[in-house]
This record gives sequence, C-alpha cells and structure tokens, in this order.
Amino acid sequence: MRLSQYFLPTLKENPSEAQIVSHRLMLRAGLVRQQAAGIYAWLPLGLRVLNRIEQIVREEQDAAGAQEVLMPTIQPAELWQQSGRYEDYGKEMLRIEDRHGRAMLYGPTNEEMITTIFKDGAKSYRDLPKNLYHIQWKFRDEVRPRFGVMRGREFLMKDAYSFDVDYEGAVVSYRAMMLAYMRTFQRLGLKAIPMVADTGPIGGDLSHEFIILAETGESEIFYDADFEAVDWVSAGYGYTPDSLAKFYGEMTARYAATSEKHDTKAWAEVPAARQRTGRGIEVGHIFYFGTKYSAPLGLSLAGPDGKPIVPHMGSYGVGVSRLVGAVIEASHDANGIIWPDPVAPFRAAIINLKPGDAATDALCASVAAKIPDHLLDDRDARAGEKFADADLVGLPWQVIAGPRGAAAGRVEVKRRATGERVELSVEDAVARVLG
Amino acid sequence: MRLSQYFLPTLKENPSEAQIVSHRLMLRAGLVRQQAAGIYAWLPLGLRVLNRIEQIVREEQDAAGAQEVLMPTIQPAELWQQSGRYEDYGKEMLRIEDRHGRAMLYGPTNEEMITTIFKDGAKSYRDLPKNLYHIQWKFRDEVRPRFGVMRGREFLMKDAYSFDVDYEGAVVSYRAMMLAYMRTFQRLGLKAIPMVADTGPIGGDLSHEFIILAETGESEIFYDADFEAVDWVSAGYGYTPDSLAKFYGEMTARYAATSEKHDTKAWAEVPAARQRTGRGIEVGHIFYFGTKYSAPLGLSLAGPDGKPIVPHMGSYGVGVSRLVGAVIEASHDANGIIWPDPVAPFRAAIINLKPGDAATDALCASVAAKIPDHLLDDRDARAGEKFADADLVGLPWQVIAGPRGAAAGRVEVKRRATGERVELSVEDAVARVLG
Repeated sequence: MRLSQYFLPTLKENPSEAQIVSHRLMLRAGLVRQQAAGIYAWLPLGLRVLNRIEQIVREEQDAAGAQEVLMPTIQPAELWQQSGRYEDYGKEMLRIEDRHGRAMLYGPTNEEMITTIFKDGAKSYRDLPKNLYHIQWKFRDEVRPRFGVMRGREFLMKDAYSFDVDYEGAVVSYRAMMLAYMRTFQRLGLKAIPMVADTGPIGGDLSHEFIILAETGESEIFYDADFEAVDWVSAGYGYTPDSLAKFYGEMTARYAATSEKHDTKAWAEVPAARQRTGRGIEVGHIFYFGTKYSAPLGLSLAGPDGKPIVPHMGSYGVGVSRLVGAVIEASHDANGIIWPDPVAPFRAAIINLKPGDAATDALCASVAAKIPDHLLDDRDARAGEKFADADLVGLPWQVIAGPRGAAAGRVEVKRRATGERVELSVEDAVARVLG
Repeated sequence: MRLSQYFLPTLKENPSEAQIVSHRLMLRAGLVRQQAAGIYAWLPLGLRVLNRIEQIVREEQDAAGAQEVLMPTIQPAELWQQSGRYEDYGKEMLRIEDRHGRAMLYGPTNEEMITTIFKDGAKSYRDLPKNLYHIQWKFRDEVRPRFGVMRGREFLMKDAYSFDVDYEGAVVSYRAMMLAYMRTFQRLGLKAIPMVADTGPIGGDLSHEFIILAETGESEIFYDADFEAVDWVSAGYGYTPDSLAKFYGEMTARYAATSEKHDTKAWAEVPAARQRTGRGIEVGHIFYFGTKYSAPLGLSLAGPDGKPIVPHMGSYGVGVSRLVGAVIEASHDANGIIWPDPVAPFRAAIINLKPGDAATDALCASVAAKIPDHLLDDRDARAGEKFADADLVGLPWQVIAGPRGAAAGRVEVKRRATGERVELSVEDAVARVLG
C-alpha cells in the first residue's frame, strides 16, 4: 500500500480530549475517530489491527472446540423479561422502541438469546457439551465513556456460551476457556493474569477476570509475582479434562484477586517479597452460572435415561476492540506505538527518502515486491516527518531507502521496538524483516 | 468438522412462516433462526456462507482500489439534521434516545458520517480521489419485514463512498464500482443486470440497481435478452479510465430498467424477440450525487490553485446478508440448496454409512484428511436421513463411504448440482472433489 494514496490522517499534536496514552496514540496514529461519546469509527490502519486481533481470538476459540455463530445486535425485550434481567440491567442497557411500539434493546451481552437458540436447536443430551461463540458489536450506555476504545459504549466483544450436562462438565468447559484466553493474550503479546472476581450482572458462582497491568486500569489488583514468570502457552497444556485440571490447578495455586474479592487473610500468606499491588485493565471475563439462564428460559433436554437435563452454562467474554487499546498501553514509547508482530497492521514501513528519484524509487519497488505486507511512504515530505510518522504508527520494521544507498543497492533496516538500525543489502534486509 | 458435534439443527418440515424458497431452505438447512421480526441469528453453517460472500465482496472492493474502514452502527442525530435527512427518512429509521436524552439512530446508511470522517482527515485535493467502504450491520425498520434475510430489518451491507475533484472524476469512480459489482456477482455465481433506477432517499442524478432474476423479486423489470449472454469478467476490463469508459459503454448500450424508470419509447426499439420482462431482486445499488452531502456538511478542500474544491461523491451498496438468500433463490432444487463452489460453507460432505464399523471409519478418516474443508456425517442415523440432509444442506460434493466399498478402498462421489454419481478409489475421489 502506498501512503500517498492511503487514508491515514495522523496528528502532530496530542488531542486534548485524550487522557491516557493508548487513546492519544490511537487518535494521533489515525487508527480511530470518535463519532459520538464512546462511539468510534475505525480508519483503515486501525481496522487492520482490529481484524488481526479478532482473528487470533477466533483461532483460539476454534482450537478449544467452540463453534462460531453470529447473533444480531438488536434483541427483543421479552427475552430479558423472561430471565428477569430486563429491569435489573439499569441504564447501561440501550432501550429502543421500534415503529410498532415493541420494546427492543441493543444487546450488551447474549446469555438469554443463545440459550433460546440452543433450546430451539438441541434435541437431547447428545447435543452436549457445546460451546457457541460470536464476535459482534455490543452497546453499553456507560454514564461517562472515556479512555477511547478502552471504555467505549459501542464495542466489539467475543462472547462464548457453554452448555454441559452437569457441574463437572461445565467445569471442564470453564477451564478450556481459561486456557484459550491465556493462549490468546500471550499470542497478542500481553501478560494477562486471571483473578477471582465478582460476577456482577451476569451472575453465577465462579468467575475470573483476566487483567493486564496498566496504571490507567479501572481495577485495583493484588497478585503473587510468580504469575509474571510462567509461559502458559509453551507449557503444553491441552484440552483434555486431565490436562485442563492440571492447568487450572497451576493457574489458581497463586494468589490473584481484584479488590472486590480481595481476601486479606489469604494475601497475608503470600511472601511479602512476592506481593504485588497495582491497577489493571480487564481484557476478559469468564463465568460459570449453572442453570441461572437455562432454568427460567426452559432449556431442558432428554437425558440418556429419559429424565430431563437442565444444562449447566458458562459465558466467556473478551473485549476485542478494547484489546487494541490494551496492546498499546502495554507496548509504546515516547515516539509512538510499538506493535507486537502478530497484531501489526503491516509488517514493515518502507520509507522512500526521495520520491521521484528513479534509482530510489526502483530500490523501494524491489523491496516492496519482496515484502507484500508493507506500507510504502512515497509522500513528498521531509525525511524528519517520515521518520516521526513511522515511529508514531509503530510498524515492527522500517526499511529506509535513499539516493546514496540506491547506488550501492543498500537500505537501512530499523527495528521499531529496539531502535536498532543496520545497513544491509536488499536481500539481507528482506530476510531480516521477513525473519 | 464432525456433524455429530456440529450445531446444525435441520428441519424436516417446511416452516409455515416462510413464503419463499430461500427463506424455507435457510430455516430447514439450519443456516439462520429468527430472533424478532426481520432480525436473524446466523448459525455456524449460515455464518460460513455469509463470511465467504463477504470476503468475495471485500476482495473485489480492494481490487478496485477502495479502502476498508468500519463505522459504528449507532450515529448521532445531529449529523442527519445537518444534511437535512433526519426528518425525511421517516419511520424506517430506528431512532434511539440514550441515557442522557441525546437523539441517536441505528445507521441505515452512512453518507453523512463518512463525509465528516473524510472532511476531518483530508488536507487538500491531493487526498482525492478516494473510495472508502465498510461492511457493517445496518437497520431499516421495515413496516412489514418478510422473506427472511432478503428483506430483514437488521442486515449486513457493504457500502462504499467515493470522493472526487469533479464530475468527470466521479464518473470514473462510479464506473469502477459498476465493474467491481459485475465481477463480484459473477464470482458468486449470479447473473446480475445493472438497471437505470430511481435514486430514492439517497438522492442524486445517476443511479443503477443490480438485479438478479427471481419470481419473488420486489421489482418489476424490463431488459434486453442480450444481457444474459455476456461474460463481463472474462472480457478483461480493467480499472483505467479508458477501459472503464469502454466497459460502461457496453454495459449501458442495451436496454434495462426497473418499472420506476421504464421508458416505453426506448423499449419499443428493442427487437420484440429480445424483450424480457419479469421480476428481480435488487442485490446492489450505486449512486452519483455530486455535492449533495459534501456541500451541506462543509467538506471543502484546497485545490492546486488555492481555490476550494467541494468533492463530488457517490455511494455504492451491496446487500451482503441478502445475497445469501439471493444465491439460494438462484440455485436450488426440490431437495434443497445447491451452493455454487465459491460460497459453499464446506466443499464436501463425507457421509459415513456405518459409523462404528472400523473399516468404514478408517476410509472416512482417510478421505477427511485429504479434503480439509469437509463436514463429516458420523451420526448414528439411517442412510436415507443422511442423504436427505446432505442434499438439503447442499454442499457441492458428497463422498459416500460404506462397509462394502471399504473393503475395496472405494467410495461414491456425487456432484450435488447434477446428481451425477460415480464410484472411485479414494485417490480419484479426492482429486475429483478438489478439482
């Protein structure tokens, strides 16, 4: 993609409305633009990041055996009246009346709807276990939306819903999602810690939040420093019940809780040198809530002995659009964003220092042909502006080509994360970038 | 994917609420389930089709030089008050009041929003031309939603918006989208005809609808039979202004119009043997409307001579979710859906006639390993039920494996579209299916 043609409106100044670094950088790097309080449009560069994160979330859900569906954004109020949540949910629910005066709402979550869909489609206990997820826009009418996409009103969420024969089965499903989440966050370059948490308006008996550390986080957290040391993905846990039990045991052996669930007695048992407190951002939340929705919504399946089974359920959410902000909170410097390779919108910026100079143009073209996933800065602009924009936008690699190097067929390669620069032949530069 | 694990609730009976064949088959084949009038949830099989269609639409937009963004579903009413459409749009617009009493709406289309986004990001005439598109859910509060996803209230639309220096530039953008649409519909296995059409609530001077023939269509149409003969994709038109001019000349030389724009005088000049009338389904609609939105919303860019330029705009819509129904209307028989290869949710059904029989299971496993994009019917069910479901669901190929063939390592391959069946070795069967 040529930058001269690309819709990438960067900003030189920090926008005054942005209080946290990810919000500032998302506006400055031309990723999003606010359309109303807490409601954002994703520009081309931002959408590429959102899509990459969404795809990683999807792959790990699929790997864990979940099946993707897509529920609509607008739901009938009756569903929520049946579960008893219609009044409970309060003003965060965006309530709508259609042209015929029917009460509707913009879904903030989908426990009720998925329960009726599964009820309508499942025939017997043979349809269990099942985990159905979707990745869809949600709306929560926050009283004070802020922090950009971190706390928006319209946001993209992956929400999965599991159905099991009984408590023992539901626990396996719960643990599978916990493993899928640890894998997902690690692939995104994030260190997330699962913490015992309140169940809030979803309800239920068992719940963990996945928190990444950030000063701007909304949650106060307490955890054992040991958590930061373990590589949960490479440890080789799989989705069999035995492996999941081992994983869950490891995962919950160390203390970690949000302030709502903080247990001062248990905390006192963590060696003082390993006690960590701070603030964190919630990027995922999982719940086991038994028959809280299946019972009132009439989901009941014939069991092997003919007796009815009311499935035990759980739900599992990841804030996909919020993760874009969370990744930036975790990975940036004074000059801009530093995208982890797996979520970068393009792998490399190719910086043409003298567009119109035939040898430099040819050099850039030969690099571009070998690195398809690139953004080529061919603008008629000063080198300083190009360097600043490349650092701001934060692609993992920069390949810098000018008239002097063109004569020798050499370019400079810069790694955004370390700032390390090295002059190389085109061939070596391409090998370095594609690494 | 193993059908015994897959959430695919097929129906044996025709649902009484479905009046047209695509709606009946989408319910029976377990593609969608209605959640409220004109609002559907997409089950796993249906979502796969929706995603494949969306991806083909996206590829052709990208090939035409359009850039993808993603605008939110909820918009502030002020935007529409500025363009003057807020009152005009009537009851089809879903109007919403948020918790602070601000007037919002669920976007039925995005001319206003994209104009302000481009205005905010563009600096000068150098940012022209530009075409920005998104694929996002829309809501139109139809008074009488019907025909399933063909005329739903919440629907997925691809809408693109072009910005050009002047009329001449806008015409090139308009023609480029016409070519992209002809290529898109042909890749989907559809024969679409662009027809001069009314501009409706979008407004403007020039408009074409893309119509596919179907008895259940909402539009009465008149066209020259010559249209059905031409292969617009293989004709080799490209996106240069010259090639587009030639393409557009060819495209508009023959008579084609909806009843609203029908011109009896011009119609009389079409040889009687080539006059075709009937009903059709609108699957796309393109508009040129000059400065209808750019002027009132204050989009003005500095020109090369310093004089302001008010960009000429067009908008270009494809009904992505509607296309799922349209493809089925165009491709089915008495037994079920016949998916064209490019949009099929899986390439092949592998039918195990005797699950639990070791040789048959092994035969199926060996076929499955070689055709990754498959749905394996491993259910404990009668052969007749499996054949009926395979025809209903309509995957392009069926590979049938039973104990008799297993001994000889042979399977039966059936092409869904023709019904042709042939017994082959595993190797030949795989080669036939992967084609």
